[in-house]
This record gives sequence, structure tokens and C-alpha cells, in this order.
Amino acid sequence: MTDATLVLNAGSSSLKFALYPNEDGSPSPILHGKIAGIGNAPQFSARDAKGNTLPPDASMPLKPCAGHDELIPQLLDWLQSHQSGLTITAAGHRVVHGGRNHATPVRINQALLAELDLLVPLAPLHQPHNLAAIRAVAAVIPELPQVACFDTSFHRTQERLAQLIPLPRKMTEAGIIRYGFHGLSYDYIASTLPMHLGERAQGRVIVAHLGNGASLCAMNKRRSVATSMGFTALGGLMMGRRCGSIDPGVLLYLMDNQGMTTRDLEHLLYHESGLLGVSGVSNDMAVLQASDAPEAREAIELFCYRTAGELTSLATANGGLDAIVFTAGIGENCALVRSLICERLGWLGVELDPDANIRNATHISSTASKIEVLVIPTDEESVIARATYRLSSACT
Amino acid sequence: MTDATLVLNAGSSSLKFALYPNEDGSPSPILHGKIAGIGNAPQFSARDAKGNTLPPDASMPLKPCAGHDELIPQLLDWLQSHQSGLTITAAGHRVVHGGRNHATPVRINQALLAELDLLVPLAPLHQPHNLAAIRAVAAVIPELPQVACFDTSFHRTQERLAQLIPLPRKMTEAGIIRYGFHGLSYDYIASTLPMHLGERAQGRVIVAHLGNGASLCAMNKRRSVATSMGFTALGGLMMGRRCGSIDPGVLLYLMDNQGMTTRDLEHLLYHESGLLGVSGVSNDMAVLQASDAPEAREAIELFCYRTAGELTSLATANGGLDAIVFTAGIGENCALVRSLICERLGWLGVELDPDANIRNATHISSTASKIEVLVIPTDEESVIARATYRLSSACT
Repeated sequence: MTDATLVLNAGSSSLKFALYPNEDGSPSPILHGKIAGIGNAPQFSARDAKGNTLPPDASMPLKPCAGHDELIPQLLDWLQSHQSGLTITAAGHRVVHGGRNHATPVRINQALLAELDLLVPLAPLHQPHNLAAIRAVAAVIPELPQVACFDTSFHRTQERLAQLIPLPRKMTEAGIIRYGFHGLSYDYIASTLPMHLGERAQGRVIVAHLGNGASLCAMNKRRSVATSMGFTALGGLMMGRRCGSIDPGVLLYLMDNQGMTTRDLEHLLYHESGLLGVSGVSNDMAVLQASDAPEAREAIELFCYRTAGELTSLATANGGLDAIVFTAGIGENCALVRSLICERLGWLGVELDPDANIRNATHISSTASKIEVLVIPTDEESVIARATYRLSSACT
Repeated sequence: MTDATLVLNAGSSSLKFALYPNEDGSPSPILHGKIAGIGNAPQFSARDAKGNTLPPDASMPLKPCAGHDELIPQLLDWLQSHQSGLTITAAGHRVVHGGRNHATPVRINQALLAELDLLVPLAPLHQPHNLAAIRAVAAVIPELPQVACFDTSFHRTQERLAQLIPLPRKMTEAGIIRYGFHGLSYDYIASTLPMHLGERAQGRVIVAHLGNGASLCAMNKRRSVATSMGFTALGGLMMGRRCGSIDPGVLLYLMDNQGMTTRDLEHLLYHESGLLGVSGVSNDMAVLQASDAPEAREAIELFCYRTAGELTSLATANGGLDAIVFTAGIGENCALVRSLICERLGWLGVELDPDANIRNATHISSTASKIEVLVIPTDEESVIARATYRLSSACT
């Protein structure tokens, strides 16, 4: 008999899942995996508690064109058959947008779903898939407690100035503010800071969540003070395929002079810009690093130039800088990016230990560095699992 | 007999003019003034060499609905009649956009005008008026040497990373880059730095040109290294009525969900945002400072919060910070703004002398401050006059 919490992270073309045992503390998943290529040629992969990839004969059978609504019932069946004696006691979901009101995870009910539907225009590329997964689970097991964990929640501690966009007041009141994202990742990193930094964990820390999506969060006393991503997932840093915050005059120009429509701009700014646009080679940092093309190197350098600038801007919002944490795909694995960013921060007293950096060690700053620099792998799923277990057991 | 250079700065609804004696060095204008309210109810004002306002009977007569093409011949007539024995030997113009190629002022000819016409889409609100003024002068005195001084030129010393926008490469090649503006003001300030800072003038200086339009320029060895304004005059800092750089997702949202057109967005972002939008009171810093409304105070604080952040970001682009110079309307006159910005930079060792600051003194940092802070009034007209005299006398 295993009582477990199911964690789901539904994207536009992927569904990540993980099963966590119902225990307090920081448990590891019993099983976790991913269905990629949804809507086209879905591919299943999963690993057991020891991190071993499941053999092909243990895989879940997939229909070619199934969407989330078909795949989720299949996944629930497969989990029951694969894991004998399994009882799923709750499902926790990553939901990208919680709006202004949700500073913590919440139990899902019909009223909440209706409220979250209203936020779809604020995150049209992500929110619909998150909500579709919730509804698909409810259709199969209506009585299962479900919990929504928002990417925006962690930032609701920010002062008003950090959340304002300089637009007319009535737009601010209507919700055009800087929500911030990657909150589950920041929440996880914040929870690990005391272990790595002792008392300094309560100081002024900037976490650089650098993945295909990328943002920075300035924390004080492990709470969000400011973040680089704003109203949508397009804002802030340059990313894999996204441009980040730019002069809005560029959009006006492209509409007036190149006849671009809203959809053209959306495609350009979400899918053709960033590292991919500048390099003309790839949106993948590892591919760029392996490339000999000078354009690939230029894209990496621009990414680091802009990230270092934004990082110092956030340090000012936070009144100083005691430590920097790198996390997510690029942050955890790319020594070159960390070193180019930290080199630009040398004037603030940041200095890396090159050997520790190349090894992706936890502490990568030199002993002479005035500012501690760390690499901490993030774990958004465990944040969702803990919150879901807490909220679902409290209510039963 | 007075040989003089005419300086013209033609905006959408105003025409500033100044007459400079043809001398080397830093001469003061013989006469300078402004026609405001062009196209509606134009108003004339002017001051003589001693700074005294001319009496009403010395004013230039104005037709109610005259445009630049009618006003410029009238102005030339009036100058001749007002200043006996005057010979205008050249006219110098502020031209907002010089594109990628012009890193210095240039003599105007037909080929140049044709080239500058092509840049109108990059600065649709300013460039047409600048070029109209050049053509109006040529229509009256075809043989008069004319010189174009560009707001973009000063920034052409920047490294490529500072000028890139993370869009597809073909757009960069087509000219969608960060040009930067306010270059005539930065050029003037750069020329005065040795007088105020001695050897430190060659160090890492950030100039904050804070007027109704606002930007920052990081200089090293008195050359531009990076600037906050980008492709158009909308980018970078929050301004009087402009939003500055924002998450481009905001524009996509407003088009998709509020049915806004390109023109609606242009009006919103150029004319209804910034200090005016946030305060709901005014775009004028002096009015906001005098207001009791908490919204007015919030607008001032947001302006300073964002400016301080961007300033530190530019310091990183410049590899450090030795001095800060405040200039232009707000920078020269608003002690509150300077003190709110510098307070946020306290973690870098910036400290003001409150008494010096309140007096708008030249040196406003305390003796303990690690970073020198100055207030230097800007003078774009004198930069145009000097360049015009130099280029026109070299060619005759």
C-alpha cells in the first residue's frame, strides 16, 4: 500500500508528472516522467525512485494525436497498473497565473476554476493547458482533492513600486502589473538557503533562474522583493526564443513599417527572438556553446551582458547584494554563462573560483569574493508535492 | 556688423532658435528664443545676450495657424530686422536621427536629406519636423551652409553588445538596433567634465539627462559606452508621458483584449503613460512635487526607483561607477528626485550633501561619498553652434 500525491505540470506540448510519497519533510519522488510532443507524436519517458529509466515494455501506450484530456485518464490508469497498491490521495498542479489575490497554493473548487479562467488572457500560452489538466483529472476522479500552485504567488510580497508598470492608473487597477513568474522555483531555492548560507540566507540574495525561460528574483529574508519578469512570460531577461523587455517602439515600428499583425508579433517575440534570433543557430545554450559560429558566441555574450545588467538593477531594488544563486537548466549546468555574468559583476566584488565553477559545485565563489555565489538545482515539483499534501490532508 | 550662426531645434509644436557669434571657444548666444504652440496658437518669446526678455513690441508677429514652413521665413526676416548689421553665415539643426552611419555632425546637401528622409520611420514624431526646418531655410537662402547635428551620433562609439536588441539577426541588419538619443546633451556634458572632475573625467561616469524626455548615458573616457534609450524615444526610463521599456506582452494583451490599434498604442505609450499616467495629475515634475495627492508622490517614487535600477545596470555595462552627473530640467532643478535616486544607490557608496543638493550646487555629494555626484546644466544649442561654425567655415 502506497499513499501518494500526484504532481502535474501541463505545458502546451508536454505533460510532466511525479508521484510523491505522503510524508512530511522533503521526500523524493517514487516515480517521475514526462509525455513530450503532445498533439503531434507524443513520447513517454519515466524514471523510478532510484533515477533509473523505465524499460520500454513498462511504458505507457500512447495514441498519436491525443490531447491532455485523453492523456490524463490514460496516465492515471497506467500509474495504478504500474505501481501496485498505489492510492493517489491528491493531485497538485503547477498553474502559471494566480493573479493578484493568491499569495499561496489553494484547494481547487468550481469557484476557483472560474476565477482562474478569467486569467487566461494574462497567460494565453500556458494557463489554458494548466486548467485543462485540472479538469481532466476531475472528470476521472471527481472526489480527488486538487491543489493549484501558482508561479506568481511567491512575488506577492513585493512592495507596490516593484509591481507597477508606468501606464495610466486605470490600467494598473485593471490588473496590468508586474506579476512575476518562476515562483515555485524561487520558493524551493528560498527553502534551501539556510542550509547553504546560514545566517546570510536572511540577507539580500539574487536567484538567477536561467532556463529556456529565464528570470531573476531579488530576495530579502527569503521573500521576493523584485523580479525581472513582469506582466507576461515575455518580459525581463533575454531568453531561449524570447526577447525579454524591449523598447515598445520596436513593436509600433514593425506594425507600421512591416505590416506585422498581433499574431506575427507574438510569434516573433515568443518563438524567433532571444538566443535563437541573435545566433541564427539555436535556442539551446549547450548547442551554442559547442558551435564555432561567431554569431553563437555573440548570442551567449548578449545573454550574459543583459543578465548582469538586470541583476545589478535588482540589487539596487534590494538595497545591496550578499549572495547570488544560479539555478535551472543553464544556471545549473553552464559554467561559461556563470563566469561571463560574474566577470561583469567584478566591480561589485564578485569573484568565482574557476575550478569550482567548472565542476558545477555548490559554492563557486572564491574565498576573496565579497559576494557568495552558489549553484543550487531547483525542484519545483517537490514544492507542489509538499503544498498539495499539506493542503489536502488539512482538509480531509 | 555681426557674423553669426543660427541654431534651430524644430519640434512637433515648437521651434527653438538661437544666434551665436562666430567665435571659437564656448560663446554665449546673442539672442535666443522659442515659438511654442505651433499649428494652434503660436506664442513667441526671446531673450537677449544678457538673458533679458525682449519687450512685447520687439516680438515677432505670428499668424495663428502657421506651420514651420511659414514661420521660418518670418523668423529669418525678424532676426535681420531686429539685429541690425546681422549676417547669418550658417544654420545648424538638431536632427533626432542620424542612423548608424553618422557619428559626427555633417554638412547638409540633397543626398544627405534623401538619406535622412529614409530614417523618418525610426523617429516619426520628431524627424519630419527637423527636416522640414532644413528645407524651409534652404527655400529662403539656398546658398546658406547648413549642418545637421544628430541626437544619435554620440552613441556610435558603443560596443556592439550595447546596441543589440535580441531579435532575429536579419532585423538587426535592417537597422532595428539601440541607437540612443540625447546625444547633443551628453556631448555637451562630456566637454565640461574635465573642468569639474579633473582626471576623474576620464573615468566611469553616468550622466542622467532627466527632462520631459529622459535617458542615462554611461561614459568611459568621455565616450558613450551604453545608454538607456534604444530604438525610439519610447525606450529606457519612465518619462513625463512615456512608459519607457516594458514587457512587450503588455502591447499584445492590449491589442488582443482591449482592441487597441497601433495608433491607440502609440498615443497611450507616448502621451498618457509615465509620470502623467501613474499620477493621474501631471507629467510635470514640479507640479507633482507641489501636489498633496499620494498618487503624485507614487509617480515620483516610481520614476526614481526605476531610474536608480537602470543606472546601476549601466554601471555594470561600464565596469564600475566613479561619478554621476544630473542634467536637464528635472536633473538640474529637482533636489527631491536627485535625493530619492541617490538614496537607492547608497549601497554603492553614494551619499549626498543635503544642503548642496537643495541649492542645486555643482558638487552635491558629501565628502564621505565614494562616488562624486554633480549637477551640470546642459546646453545642446552651444554644441550645435560650435559644430556648425566649425563645419561651415572649414568648407568655405
